[in-house]
Amino acid sequence: MGMVGGGRGAFIGAVHRIAANIDGQIELVCGAFSSDPGRSKESGADFYLPPNRCYGTFEEMIAAEKALPAGERMDFISIVTPNHVHFPPAKLALENGFHVLSDKPATFDLAEAKELAGLVKKTGLLYGLTHNYTGYPLVKEARDMVHTGKLGKIRKVVVEYPQGWLATRLEASGQKQAGWRTDPKRSGAAGCIGDIGTHAENLAEYITGLKIKELAADLTTFVEGRLLDDDGNVLLRFEGGAKGVLHASQISVGEENNLNIRVYGEKGGLEWHQKEPNTLLVKWLDQPMQVYRTANGYLSKAAAAAGRTPPAHPEGYLEAFANIYRNFAAHIRATLENRQPDPLHLDYPKIEDGVRGMAFIEAVVRSGHNNAAWTPIES
Amino acid sequence: MGMVGGGRGAFIGAVHRIAANIDGQIELVCGAFSSDPGRSKESGADFYLPPNRCYGTFEEMIAAEKALPAGERMDFISIVTPNHVHFPPAKLALENGFHVLSDKPATFDLAEAKELAGLVKKTGLLYGLTHNYTGYPLVKEARDMVHTGKLGKIRKVVVEYPQGWLATRLEASGQKQAGWRTDPKRSGAAGCIGDIGTHAENLAEYITGLKIKELAADLTTFVEGRLLDDDGNVLLRFEGGAKGVLHASQISVGEENNLNIRVYGEKGGLEWHQKEPNTLLVKWLDQPMQVYRTANGYLSKAAAAAGRTPPAHPEGYLEAFANIYRNFAAHIRATLENRQPDPLHLDYPKIEDGVRGMAFIEAVVRSGHNNAAWTPIES
Amino acid sequence: MGMVGGGRGAFIGAVHRIAANIDGQIELVCGAFSSDPGRSKESGADFYLPPNRCYGTFEEMIAAEKALPAGERMDFISIVTPNHVHFPPAKLALENGFHVLSDKPATFDLAEAKELAGLVKKTGLLYGLTHNYTGYPLVKEARDMVHTGKLGKIRKVVVEYPQGWLATRLEASGQKQAGWRTDPKRSGAAGCIGDIGTHAENLAEYITGLKIKELAADLTTFVEGRLLDDDGNVLLRFEGGAKGVLHASQISVGEENNLNIRVYGEKGGLEWHQKEPNTLLVKWLDQPMQVYRTANGYLSKAAAAAGRTPPAHPEGYLEAFANIYRNFAAHIRATLENRQPDPLHLDYPKIEDGVRGMAFIEAVVRSGHNNAAWTPIES
Amino acid sequence: MGMVGGGRGAFIGAVHRIAANIDGQIELVCGAFSSDPGRSKESGADFYLPPNRCYGTFEEMIAAEKALPAGERMDFISIVTPNHVHFPPAKLALENGFHVLSDKPATFDLAEAKELAGLVKKTGLLYGLTHNYTGYPLVKEARDMVHTGKLGKIRKVVVEYPQGWLATRLEASGQKQAGWRTDPKRSGAAGCIGDIGTHAENLAEYITGLKIKELAADLTTFVEGRLLDDDGNVLLRFEGGAKGVLHASQISVGEENNLNIRVYGEKGGLEWHQKEPNTLLVKWLDQPMQVYRTANGYLSKAAAAAGRTPPAHPEGYLEAFANIYRNFAAHIRATLENRQPDPLHLDYPKIEDGVRGMAFIEAVVRSGHNNAAWTPIES
Repeated sequence: MGMVGGGRGAFIGAVHRIAANIDGQIELVCGAFSSDPGRSKESGADFYLPPNRCYGTFEEMIAAEKALPAGERMDFISIVTPNHVHFPPAKLALENGFHVLSDKPATFDLAEAKELAGLVKKTGLLYGLTHNYTGYPLVKEARDMVHTGKLGKIRKVVVEYPQGWLATRLEASGQKQAGWRTDPKRSGAAGCIGDIGTHAENLAEYITGLKIKELAADLTTFVEGRLLDDDGNVLLRFEGGAKGVLHASQISVGEENNLNIRVYGEKGGLEWHQKEPNTLLVKWLDQPMQVYRTANGYLSKAAAAAGRTPPAHPEGYLEAFANIYRNFAAHIRATLENRQPDPLHLDYPKIEDGVRGMAFIEAVVRSGHNNAAWTPIES
Repeated sequence: MGMVGGGRGAFIGAVHRIAANIDGQIELVCGAFSSDPGRSKESGADFYLPPNRCYGTFEEMIAAEKALPAGERMDFISIVTPNHVHFPPAKLALENGFHVLSDKPATFDLAEAKELAGLVKKTGLLYGLTHNYTGYPLVKEARDMVHTGKLGKIRKVVVEYPQGWLATRLEASGQKQAGWRTDPKRSGAAGCIGDIGTHAENLAEYITGLKIKELAADLTTFVEGRLLDDDGNVLLRFEGGAKGVLHASQISVGEENNLNIRVYGEKGGLEWHQKEPNTLLVKWLDQPMQVYRTANGYLSKAAAAAGRTPPAHPEGYLEAFANIYRNFAAHIRATLENRQPDPLHLDYPKIEDGVRGMAFIEAVVRSGHNNAAWTPIES
Repeated sequence: MGMVGGGRGAFIGAVHRIAANIDGQIELVCGAFSSDPGRSKESGADFYLPPNRCYGTFEEMIAAEKALPAGERMDFISIVTPNHVHFPPAKLALENGFHVLSDKPATFDLAEAKELAGLVKKTGLLYGLTHNYTGYPLVKEARDMVHTGKLGKIRKVVVEYPQGWLATRLEASGQKQAGWRTDPKRSGAAGCIGDIGTHAENLAEYITGLKIKELAADLTTFVEGRLLDDDGNVLLRFEGGAKGVLHASQISVGEENNLNIRVYGEKGGLEWHQKEPNTLLVKWLDQPMQVYRTANGYLSKAAAAAGRTPPAHPEGYLEAFANIYRNFAAHIRATLENRQPDPLHLDYPKIEDGVRGMAFIEAVVRSGHNNAAWTPIES
Repeated sequence: MGMVGGGRGAFIGAVHRIAANIDGQIELVCGAFSSDPGRSKESGADFYLPPNRCYGTFEEMIAAEKALPAGERMDFISIVTPNHVHFPPAKLALENGFHVLSDKPATFDLAEAKELAGLVKKTGLLYGLTHNYTGYPLVKEARDMVHTGKLGKIRKVVVEYPQGWLATRLEASGQKQAGWRTDPKRSGAAGCIGDIGTHAENLAEYITGLKIKELAADLTTFVEGRLLDDDGNVLLRFEGGAKGVLHASQISVGEENNLNIRVYGEKGGLEWHQKEPNTLLVKWLDQPMQVYRTANGYLSKAAAAAGRTPPAHPEGYLEAFANIYRNFAAHIRATLENRQPDPLHLDYPKIEDGVRGMAFIEAVVRSGHNNAAWTPIES
């Protein structure tokens, strides 16, 4: 794996490296960790890379690695830069025969995402997207419950992602994460909705298997001087008649990273909280609620495959993230070995999820500008 | 107190009687418990009432009681009938000099509510409404925190009231509670929104002290053959710029009576769940969350006054309900004794809350019929 | 009902009155609320009693009431005084033909309790004891689960009752509740163990139906100058081979009234917390945990009979307390009407529980003085 | 790192490898994964090791690695075998100049542990022990709170570790983990107490900084035919006067891995649950409870250093485990580089903890055989 971005001081790059390390199946062999070549080399040294494989730009990296012998060069790139630098390295990598694993959102805007989808299709290369919350074992259990019909036809979805870290104008303090996330030039058309609202959308569609047909969004920028939305409340209508609510916020003081989802069908309901991800509440008509926990024998094959520890040894965010890396790597390996991948290994977010996310962002922003008028998602 | 409705087999009548009993300050002296005079007498006997004060109709009761000497006749009526029989006894009681305590919603429609408000004003009599959830000590603490500025200017409110008991067509089974609640002739223009959505609205406005200015509502009837909404998702805009989400449901399988509220200001946030009403979560920027519990010395005067037991002797629904009765009775007593009531005793829902609730219902229904267009609340 | 103790400023007296009021089946007709006759009359006036039925002493009350005609005089006395004044009025009432409902512990020491048991037997009168925690609906459900064999043979019990209110020397401040509870002359041989340890013991034996055979107790007085234990850790051995741990504390800073119990059998386990009494966790081998909640249709007859509200309208401490009053009153009524009581109404703590509690206290104290040597409970 | 044990089918070996991988600071370079040389090579191949560094025995590994040049050979061994094979490889490694990281308990019995302590002292080599629960960030926060005096003098500790996985005679089914853990020849003198009771003991002493002085233990074997204890209830007395309760169980049906601790001082208390390790409850006299959460700015330096992700990205068991590896590796690195280690890196369990754990086990077993007589811990 070659990494784009993620040098010293970055947050998500470290998460990606841990996720890649956990299972001992992926080796970081090179990187363009920073647009400053010296800093890139320094960062690479932290990871025990030789200086000659610490590149100043992703263009340089892709060209140099391509020139290496097949067994030596990187197999895929991992993109961990701010949003506006997702598309360019992804495109270049695909055009030069490298698989791509990218942080979300897939691109800066929907047009880029569609172009990328075309390239993935054309090249036949693999593309993974770290919508990491779908990597949790019990999210997979939730999906399995819906897909096997245990809950009956789905009627209602409530998905929410409140955070509080941007309740003040943190970006004015020079905080790096706040800086680019609130900057339309680097973040894209949406702030809160792009950064975390897409995770909520992705989670809802992943679990239910239903697509959001149209939405009505009330976006707000509460913090004075901020250029992008920091709060959004959205009504959802799904294909097939289910209804829903999605709300996301960066100004909900005291909330950490409180991604939650509730899904109700005709026969049962379920509830999951990212904060305590090893518990899934399952609700029934006229029967006591059940508390599913990771790593127990009663779980589905999909949930079992996503765990690494026995019951009540809690797994967390990094393991969920690692599940995407593990499946992506297993898929690459199957490809390299010319065999059919295990269907369980195909369970990671792909370019279609990326396109969907960008279409969601554009629809929310359009609806928001239009006084929350109903707006279709066009993907 | 004289009771209208609440004979054998009724649910909410029993709750009102317990609420009235708890503090030993209110005596049930008569009732028109059923439109069937025999049944009314039988019910009255259950409560140790003499047959001559068990009436066949509320008209009869009001007339007969009025004819009794001042020290003997009832002081107020308690109305515990289905929605369409809230207004008539309230009106007649006021016109004949009796105070009124009514179950919610105040009336069948907004016009009736406004007429009732006029009567209350004109007669100078007292009118209380059992929006019982505002009777909980920690709801009062929450309100106090907002009003004393601890949370800063309010930005966002999320209030929700999912239930699951009407996920199937229970009304077709002859279940009495389901029957009238899903019948437009007895329930009014809204189903779920009228029955429980109004509680959510009332709670949000009570705690924040902010009025909802306009709303966009997506109403659904999921259960085939049902005539009223059984699910509603609503975007809220408050006076002063706060935003919010309100959702209520009767088809959220496995949910009991899950009224929850979260409020976020510029400096802090709070979260309260009716299911565990003796806990209030208080959230801060950069400080650990605090867990407020009933009956502790650190609570506000308002919260302290609403409790009856020491810490961790949990109080519940009936005590919250009883707080409305207790304050209402104390207010009547002050009136009878010609003195100023203790300001703490004025803290119970009044006709203004009733009008507000009916205006909310009408706005939601109008918005719902209009594809969730923004609709002002006119009260 | 005539009350002994519970005048102005008392805590538990108010709880008893609310518990008696809730269901409208019991009327407070007289009282000896204070050893100061003037204060007794003042207190009685608060409850709308005529002065002539507010007595200066319980002796006076029992004599005067006995002299009244049968339909007029009190049916039973309710004893809400400190521990050293439990036995005398109970004895006198029984000797004069009155039923007795007493706060716990039954008496000051085991000898008194045994004498009282003899009197109850001899007179054939009814005696109830407010070990109120067994009044909760889900405690009854827990008991039903054990008794119907759902959990299999019981192996282990963990019961705990930490409080923190006496972590400092509160009794030195003049606080009334702390005063008598830490005074060996009024409280008895044990402090913490007598006040709350007995509740834990009673709860464990009630739910499991097993008797503690012997125990090893390590008692401590942490607060300097205090005369009685304020913390106790106890190993338990039950008849039939089950083992257990009981710990109680008044110096566990920050704990409110945190009575908890866990019971494990060969097939299943259960867990209940008084702090959130409407939830019962039920655990299984190889199956997800279930969350039982009050007022649902799946509950046992015993649990259902102990509730007053529909699901998720939380009931609390006062309702649990009231269940003892309700059953006791129903038993008296059956006796007055010369009919067999409903077996459900016999479910309230009796003199046998009182004797058992006193024997537990004496065993704990003896073991504690004996460096935690194993000590049998002799009852 | 060279691994002893942990071949295909082992549980804890995989955990150790992930823990070593996570931070990219440790490389697995060789192993004696199985006593079957072929199996050892197969397992090594799973980890991309060359066959010549997959050894058939730890003796062979230590000899062969010692013969390699300094920059090539392993720096330390990681021991992940059943208990009876902890001491021999540890001893041999130390005698041959290799640092040792071992799974717990340190040895098979106390005598071995003391011998090992002597060897560590004599060689000056590093020895780490994976009492992994002390690796959690909030356990470190708890310790910091005690050590900085925030809770005042400690009075009471309640530590518990219930599991339910051995509620039936699982070892009879051939399940490997159950097999050796219930076999006195491989597990040692204690079953439940050795496997998990020691974790509880270690956690209590780590957080409080207090040593258990004496204990009284009631041990039971509930499952017929089992040779070691599967349940234990223990009274604790700490140096300095604090009291405590420790109970551990493998037959508490439905419990997963429910390690919990509560500590109460004169001024405050705290509560931590391994099941939800990112939350620490902090309790105060007369103030609301606070909820500390990982990764927030208000945490101590020690807790902050132990985290890898931002707030509400839950970390779990593997990360806590990895913290021991990370600190141990950093300590080795400092040693290799001849510099003082960062004091934060010294925070991992050492041979003293191992001796202490073995002394605890022996005291518990002795007390258990002696009808729970008070027994000192001799370490």
